Amino acid sequence: MGEMTNELAILLLSCEDRSGLVSRISHFVFERGGNIVDLDEHVAADEGVFSVRVAWELRGFSVRPEHLNEAFAPLGREFEAEWKIHLTGDVPKLAVFVSRYDHCLQDLLWRHKARELDCELKLIISNHSDLEPLARFYDIPFYVFPKTKKNRKEQENAELRLLEENEIDTVVLARYMQILSEEFVAEYPNQIINIHHSFLPAFIGGNPYRQAYERGVKIVGATSHYVTADLDEGPIIEQDVIRVSHRDAVQDMIRKGRDLERVVLARALRAHLARRVLVSGAKTVVFE
Amino acid sequence: MGEMTNELAILLLSCEDRSGLVSRISHFVFERGGNIVDLDEHVAADEGVFSVRVAWELRGFSVRPEHLNEAFAPLGREFEAEWKIHLTGDVPKLAVFVSRYDHCLQDLLWRHKARELDCELKLIISNHSDLEPLARFYDIPFYVFPKTKKNRKEQENAELRLLEENEIDTVVLARYMQILSEEFVAEYPNQIINIHHSFLPAFIGGNPYRQAYERGVKIVGATSHYVTADLDEGPIIEQDVIRVSHRDAVQDMIRKGRDLERVVLARALRAHLARRVLVSGAKTVVFE
Amino acid sequence: MGEMTNELAILLLSCEDRSGLVSRISHFVFERGGNIVDLDEHVAADEGVFSVRVAWELRGFSVRPEHLNEAFAPLGREFEAEWKIHLTGDVPKLAVFVSRYDHCLQDLLWRHKARELDCELKLIISNHSDLEPLARFYDIPFYVFPKTKKNRKEQENAELRLLEENEIDTVVLARYMQILSEEFVAEYPNQIINIHHSFLPAFIGGNPYRQAYERGVKIVGATSHYVTADLDEGPIIEQDVIRVSHRDAVQDMIRKGRDLERVVLARALRAHLARRVLVSGAKTVVFE
Amino acid sequence: MGEMTNELAILLLSCEDRSGLVSRISHFVFERGGNIVDLDEHVAADEGVFSVRVAWELRGFSVRPEHLNEAFAPLGREFEAEWKIHLTGDVPKLAVFVSRYDHCLQDLLWRHKARELDCELKLIISNHSDLEPLARFYDIPFYVFPKTKKNRKEQENAELRLLEENEIDTVVLARYMQILSEEFVAEYPNQIINIHHSFLPAFIGGNPYRQAYERGVKIVGATSHYVTADLDEGPIIEQDVIRVSHRDAVQDMIRKGRDLERVVLARALRAHLARRVLVSGAKTVVFE
Repeated sequence: MGEMTNELAILLLSCEDRSGLVSRISHFVFERGGNIVDLDEHVAADEGVFSVRVAWELRGFSVRPEHLNEAFAPLGREFEAEWKIHLTGDVPKLAVFVSRYDHCLQDLLWRHKARELDCELKLIISNHSDLEPLARFYDIPFYVFPKTKKNRKEQENAELRLLEENEIDTVVLARYMQILSEEFVAEYPNQIINIHHSFLPAFIGGNPYRQAYERGVKIVGATSHYVTADLDEGPIIEQDVIRVSHRDAVQDMIRKGRDLERVVLARALRAHLARRVLVSGAKTVVFE
Repeated sequence: MGEMTNELAILLLSCEDRSGLVSRISHFVFERGGNIVDLDEHVAADEGVFSVRVAWELRGFSVRPEHLNEAFAPLGREFEAEWKIHLTGDVPKLAVFVSRYDHCLQDLLWRHKARELDCELKLIISNHSDLEPLARFYDIPFYVFPKTKKNRKEQENAELRLLEENEIDTVVLARYMQILSEEFVAEYPNQIINIHHSFLPAFIGGNPYRQAYERGVKIVGATSHYVTADLDEGPIIEQDVIRVSHRDAVQDMIRKGRDLERVVLARALRAHLARRVLVSGAKTVVFE
Repeated sequence: MGEMTNELAILLLSCEDRSGLVSRISHFVFERGGNIVDLDEHVAADEGVFSVRVAWELRGFSVRPEHLNEAFAPLGREFEAEWKIHLTGDVPKLAVFVSRYDHCLQDLLWRHKARELDCELKLIISNHSDLEPLARFYDIPFYVFPKTKKNRKEQENAELRLLEENEIDTVVLARYMQILSEEFVAEYPNQIINIHHSFLPAFIGGNPYRQAYERGVKIVGATSHYVTADLDEGPIIEQDVIRVSHRDAVQDMIRKGRDLERVVLARALRAHLARRVLVSGAKTVVFE
Repeated sequence: MGEMTNELAILLLSCEDRSGLVSRISHFVFERGGNIVDLDEHVAADEGVFSVRVAWELRGFSVRPEHLNEAFAPLGREFEAEWKIHLTGDVPKLAVFVSRYDHCLQDLLWRHKARELDCELKLIISNHSDLEPLARFYDIPFYVFPKTKKNRKEQENAELRLLEENEIDTVVLARYMQILSEEFVAEYPNQIINIHHSFLPAFIGGNPYRQAYERGVKIVGATSHYVTADLDEGPIIEQDVIRVSHRDAVQDMIRKGRDLERVVLARALRAHLARRVLVSGAKTVVFE
């Protein structure tokens, strides 16, 4: 795609569908000397919603990066659109929240080191110190914020300060066993990614593998979604499943599920980091 | 397996787990001159439930087929087991219930003709006459029982009489859009197989593809299960899924789902007909 | 997409990659009053090949459909591109070739009737008469051209005449057990779609399920591809697989494979009919 | 299964099929006071080969573990069988061979620590020192044997001595980029497990992802197999695949393939360690 070699601007936009949107947006880029290297759009006919992702080279573009938003604002206003322009030069800054399960964390750390995740993994936050040695091996700062019912608010505020100081823009909950407050979530709209260990909306809530075992399903799943105020109701980014049978006890489902959780979380995160995910109502458009 | 060439007896048994069950059951067969050609057992450790499927050749077996149940009864009683002995010579007799959707019916008819389904497909029952030409092409009797709220009970009784006259032992609901009464279901315990067009327990009830569309899932599924008094709560025999994306409207999900429904139903039915499915509580053991 | 409601022009184009291609092509449409409803492009960085699919509404477009090719020709020449403009109003005309296996044919006929295949299924050609009743049930003309080594050339010529008379533009080989001559294939470049019953390039040639059985693979596949002069070497459109185990004899693989062959062929054909497949060298780009 | 709580004997046996094999083998166990907890058999009808896996509790068994082989030998001889009796108390001792790619090694190390692999991971051997820090983090001894054309024989001998000293019984090649000599392989028949990064038999040899890219396949795979003298021709234990598209460059296939290689290798190894894999000619029977 050439997206790697030159700096690009990436517009993610959604608005009510109307005629000529692709044309108007393309013209905006062309008139200013931009070279479109990727354009993908989608119209959800039922809802009448138009979504688009446009990537163009900044080299030769007559608008300077710092004035991009200002330049596009009139068009955005006219379309009554929700939109954002990202620059590939602004590498996302990531924080990972974990508790005691290490399978997702070790996978993210390995992928980050293997350059599969195009981001700066700035820090890890946990309510336990168990996974500190793992963080140290990969040389990522690890902070412990133990939580009780009493100190939750206070600890969350400390966490938010730490995120702010590090200019974090994406938070990953890698099997973090604490519920974040509405206030916390509101600070990072569609920027907190969770991995839930079931095929949502089946088996919402705790112990989904046990629920799956008891219902006798023949397939179990995992779901990665943006975190919203409603638990397990956020827009789904990615899901996958694995076959189980009567031979699988709850422990086997947990084991098989671990393999699933890590790849589903990694795929969702990769799509998010590449600015390929657009939230539209309660759903996502994941451009390929 | 040799199961095709010689007549076999197939024991399906489940009981509380205890030591020596395989030994005792194998001895029962060996002592009477039987040659075991397939034995598969499973212990659900959590529930302490033992399940087994044993198939042996009737050639040379000292007990005559008509006395098999009598001969095994003492052992069954001792184990306080639920059990049944099937003979491969007793080919299952099948009735298919349909409404207007033809995708599952045409698939079953084709598979039956292609000898994929080891059964006698005796008749088709519908509340509409639309699919009669299809039945006629495959030369299977087709009966129409239109249903209204008022005549449901009466029509069900007529259907039951027809099933009885034809000695039906397995009923397939191939997207039959009527709910069967508890009384009807009670006549065929674990012998009525339904196909539900979602990955149960997600999207119970009507319009599951629309529900899936609105939740924004990235995968849709289909589930084949035994029918019990509780709708969509019966023991699951088989499930499978297919990937969808934001590009798929409800109509696309319905289309993709049709492919899924037919194979999931066919797989479940094949397992049932081969006496490989054992119901244990709210779940199934599907021996391979 | 709105592609269903208004007539569209669909450009499929590939050429050497260079800067500004999306811009130039979009401008061509915009300047003539066209409204782009879908645009998807791909750059194969390794080969430096650019591919694009653009769909726009003909309503309000200043060039009349019959002059479209003429109007685009200068741009095509400048880019030294291979390109074609299709009109959604020109519904593809399909011929299906079969021998004795009915699983793919009955599936295509059912899908066509269920309006899953956006084409006119004009006729069926076979070297045997076995499947004529099936064709008659779906009311599609069925022609028999028995082939021997001696009469092959002659029969192919008769087939070609029949295809020409019916203005066929897409040929599907639905498990047709005869090899078509190079001359025949040359008449329909990238317009003949075959289904091969293996995961190509594994198990090229005859009896792939037996080959798979003997190699002891744990997965078998099916491949749909365009037919070229080199048998089983044509550009792949779609593939899928299914799990097998030591329990599956060759006959079981054949049975499982039948399910696979039909869906893989149907998916490939649907993509082709929707003008979503672009052949680029020995490979395809399948736009979604 | 109770296999975890009590020590078991596990018989793996294959021989020419004949009547009464299950009976004779079961009797052998019963007569000596053994309680069979798992029995799975398979007859490959085409080849006339019988395979069985029987697990029974040693508690109460009248033959002492060290005399088991002696006790069963007469039966094995009579059946002209290939057979082996394993004790679950004899935990397999594992050596992993790696070069520079770390994805499989880090995965095995993590799984071993997470107790997913029922073995003693005794040591890691590499021809490079790159992955030593990873081994050290997981506290597994790491040995470097650099290889040149000239010293290969010598180094292999040193490796064999090291394996012998550590009583290694299973060797895993976790993307080891050196070919082992026939003599080396002969020392560990059906005990060396390799992961090949393609869906064998497609893309044998080097650079399979590039081969896959150039052929334009829509799915790539990975294969875990026992190593034999013929490269990439050994009995296949496990395979899996992942979907790719024209959007995936060779680098993307490599990245996607890494996820596949780790799970395929891990599944094959788990089956091997649980004594569930029986090699029969050029194929495996993997009991579930």
